[in-house]
Amino acid sequence: MKRIERGGHEDQEKEEESMSNHSQFSNFFYPKNIVVIGVSSEPTNLGKNIVLNCLTFGYQGEILSVGLRKGVVFGQQIYQSLEDIDRKIHLAVILTPAKAIPEILEQCGRKGIKWVVIESGGFSEMGKEGSALENGCIEVARKYGIRFIGPNGIGMINMENGLAMPFMPLQRDISLGPVSILAQSGGVGLSYLGFLAEENIGINKFVSMGNKLNVDENDLLEYLIHDEGTRIILLYLEGFTDGRRFIEIASKSKKPILVHKSNRFKASAQIAHSHTAALLSDDQLVDHALEQAGCVRVNTMDDAMDYTKSLTLPPLKGNRLAVVSRSGGHAVIAADVCAHYGFHLPSFPEDFLKKIESRLRAHVIRLQNPLDLGDLFDLDFYEYIVDELLKREDLDGVLLGHGYRYQGFEQKASRKLVQKVAQLVERYQKPVALFVFTESVEIDYLRRHSNIPIFSAPENAMRAFYLSHKWASRRPISMELSRRDLGSKTT
Amino acid sequence: MKRIERGGHEDQEKEEESMSNHSQFSNFFYPKNIVVIGVSSEPTNLGKNIVLNCLTFGYQGEILSVGLRKGVVFGQQIYQSLEDIDRKIHLAVILTPAKAIPEILEQCGRKGIKWVVIESGGFSEMGKEGSALENGCIEVARKYGIRFIGPNGIGMINMENGLAMPFMPLQRDISLGPVSILAQSGGVGLSYLGFLAEENIGINKFVSMGNKLNVDENDLLEYLIHDEGTRIILLYLEGFTDGRRFIEIASKSKKPILVHKSNRFKASAQIAHSHTAALLSDDQLVDHALEQAGCVRVNTMDDAMDYTKSLTLPPLKGNRLAVVSRSGGHAVIAADVCAHYGFHLPSFPEDFLKKIESRLRAHVIRLQNPLDLGDLFDLDFYEYIVDELLKREDLDGVLLGHGYRYQGFEQKASRKLVQKVAQLVERYQKPVALFVFTESVEIDYLRRHSNIPIFSAPENAMRAFYLSHKWASRRPISMELSRRDLGSKTT
Repeated sequence: MKRIERGGHEDQEKEEESMSNHSQFSNFFYPKNIVVIGVSSEPTNLGKNIVLNCLTFGYQGEILSVGLRKGVVFGQQIYQSLEDIDRKIHLAVILTPAKAIPEILEQCGRKGIKWVVIESGGFSEMGKEGSALENGCIEVARKYGIRFIGPNGIGMINMENGLAMPFMPLQRDISLGPVSILAQSGGVGLSYLGFLAEENIGINKFVSMGNKLNVDENDLLEYLIHDEGTRIILLYLEGFTDGRRFIEIASKSKKPILVHKSNRFKASAQIAHSHTAALLSDDQLVDHALEQAGCVRVNTMDDAMDYTKSLTLPPLKGNRLAVVSRSGGHAVIAADVCAHYGFHLPSFPEDFLKKIESRLRAHVIRLQNPLDLGDLFDLDFYEYIVDELLKREDLDGVLLGHGYRYQGFEQKASRKLVQKVAQLVERYQKPVALFVFTESVEIDYLRRHSNIPIFSAPENAMRAFYLSHKWASRRPISMELSRRDLGSKTT
Repeated sequence: MKRIERGGHEDQEKEEESMSNHSQFSNFFYPKNIVVIGVSSEPTNLGKNIVLNCLTFGYQGEILSVGLRKGVVFGQQIYQSLEDIDRKIHLAVILTPAKAIPEILEQCGRKGIKWVVIESGGFSEMGKEGSALENGCIEVARKYGIRFIGPNGIGMINMENGLAMPFMPLQRDISLGPVSILAQSGGVGLSYLGFLAEENIGINKFVSMGNKLNVDENDLLEYLIHDEGTRIILLYLEGFTDGRRFIEIASKSKKPILVHKSNRFKASAQIAHSHTAALLSDDQLVDHALEQAGCVRVNTMDDAMDYTKSLTLPPLKGNRLAVVSRSGGHAVIAADVCAHYGFHLPSFPEDFLKKIESRLRAHVIRLQNPLDLGDLFDLDFYEYIVDELLKREDLDGVLLGHGYRYQGFEQKASRKLVQKVAQLVERYQKPVALFVFTESVEIDYLRRHSNIPIFSAPENAMRAFYLSHKWASRRPISMELSRRDLGSKTT
């Protein structure tokens, strides 16, 4: 599967370099203790929120604070200088005015701190003066061998140890799970965190990379590819630091990498002017390179979420689907999208259809694939149908559409059905793309409480299936993607 | 703007025919009284729900019930035959087994009922036997001059008079408003009803057309084009009854017609087989014809909702936008999509930017268009910014991104901001595409309680703007589309 051919010797070197990068970067994610620089007890101080988030998320190491003025935050005194701290410090997080930062880095260097996250803005994104500050930071970092993330980001989160650096209080409902996020923009990154929390999909690690002055997406991507806890990688990028290296690293990944690359139509410094053919082909080059590297490109936040959801399901290994829906119209839409993506809908055997027919109320629906369950009201029997379909060898997955009313008489049975379907997916290790037509408050409930992705329309579910199949047929199917059975079946 | 040239005489005839159709079809939507046939007091009876829905939605006319067995529903006796009813009946709704329906139609004819809605399934969609029943219905209808909607649908809703025929209890939160829906599938139609209710967008009329055996989408579209209460028409179709007539009718519409046409890849009787070039070109023909008729084609339910939302805003008359966002990353994504669709982002004047700069907290953001308001926390000032931008003559609309936390300290001020923005849109009659990054429960609240569409991502908001602009530049801008000022400014 190797796409970029190189000599064996060089390969070995690269491999060693990569492993050393890995142990190096784990210092960012698993520090023994941290110091937050720029904390005060003022109500509007943002540095304080970094301490708060680490406390909220249960970071186990010591959290120290440094600020200009004396004071107490969360029961602990604020040091007025790094020098006042008498023990060794592993990692520093800085949120002070930009102009102070080269000097603070200098202090970090003298204190022996090698791992730093700079969250402050006001650097090259602000013009010449900021660029000079950046050069200052780079110089000091080189002098002391410091690696730093940022500036102009919101730092990192590691759900495995409760490290949580954003300077705004985080949602508490973020859980530990398979998805790691690298986002150049803190705001877009936070949106993704929020969307995933609402889908009950857990996060492993999160990095807001900001200006990528020292540590860039390639360093972090390489780390995450080797990171045990990460199974799906989602990147939001506004520009590549080194596109060639990115492709080299990404093409070795056995984990799916979703790339949301914006800034697609801006060639010059002027933001967002009308696109020309030249610009478009630029973006097509990115398309092509990402394709070559085996990445999945997504162009909108909705796509990114649908695709991430689909990748938490067992992979769709073939193109034979069953479509089952409680509404005939939705079944037609679903069948339509199946055809659009080239999926096959094999016929169902007669005895199976007869068994279903015996349960129908008015017998006014013709049974076939897609299967319209319009007037079948026995929801336990739905479970039987999904079970029968998943166990069939001539089917690779099921598209299931269910509809009911929030606070209606079927709500309880429907919620139970969703849980049962999630269990069947686990048992048969085949995916069910489940779309539910109901009030958004109920969709929200299902998303937060189900162990299976919930789609709100057949088109989104099918698009996700399409991606899953494309991903599964691209490489030997990595069992790392299934929710359980990780040990024995891993290739 | 006339696209299909014909002689003046023929035109006049058509116009007269169309007006006579109009008064004819108003009998379906504004009946003086109705009879529901197929009602029983059994707990599982569905006909009863039709009576219930009419009561819930406040239908003012008399509602009579006919069924095989004696009984009482909602305080009123069930008649055992139409003949037992001693007064004139305007409209009948039938929900009985299919095989009884030709005879019931015969009874309707004898009773002088000319307007019928048949909701039962089990007709041609079930094969030969069903086709014979259909022929029976057509024959009886011809004999008595009956017009009927259906079979195999869920009937009509008219929010103007509370007529509500679906046989499942409807959501109560549907309100009266500008959108009318024609849906071949009841299930998809209901999904649209639900989505619109959640967006606080009102419905005017709804028809589930089913098998379109007698009344088809052309009859109903023509009616809605002339219907005063309808300002936006949304169609869900699985097939055209007479495509040429559809195009003729649609091309005369001054109201936007959104067409969601599924069944795109099925040429033969077999549902959803793999698509071929021939099939694809079939669908492209539909594309072309709809374009020619000035319809807006949508291919997914998400698109349909985004576009319907955008059409409830004042039209975007030019292509000059201001992008304002509380997150820099979202601003970049938005600017990106602006470029993709060919919108221009004019520079903002210096004095305006200086005024904003004076309010910023850390001065670490460069002000331009797109405008990143990252550390501006005074939400009243956001209102000032939107006001200033909407009043500018060099701007046609604003894309505004706002973010806050559900139950966070800014929730109240943010909800107020959304209301204020809606008022500014009204005042200046220019659109603001508002996307909000927050928890879905808060998005849901905003959608249900705002008089302005809420988008959940910049891409969706921009796509909606694109459509709005395309629509506004297609024809003389119809002022019918603005939420108020209907009287004086109507062209």
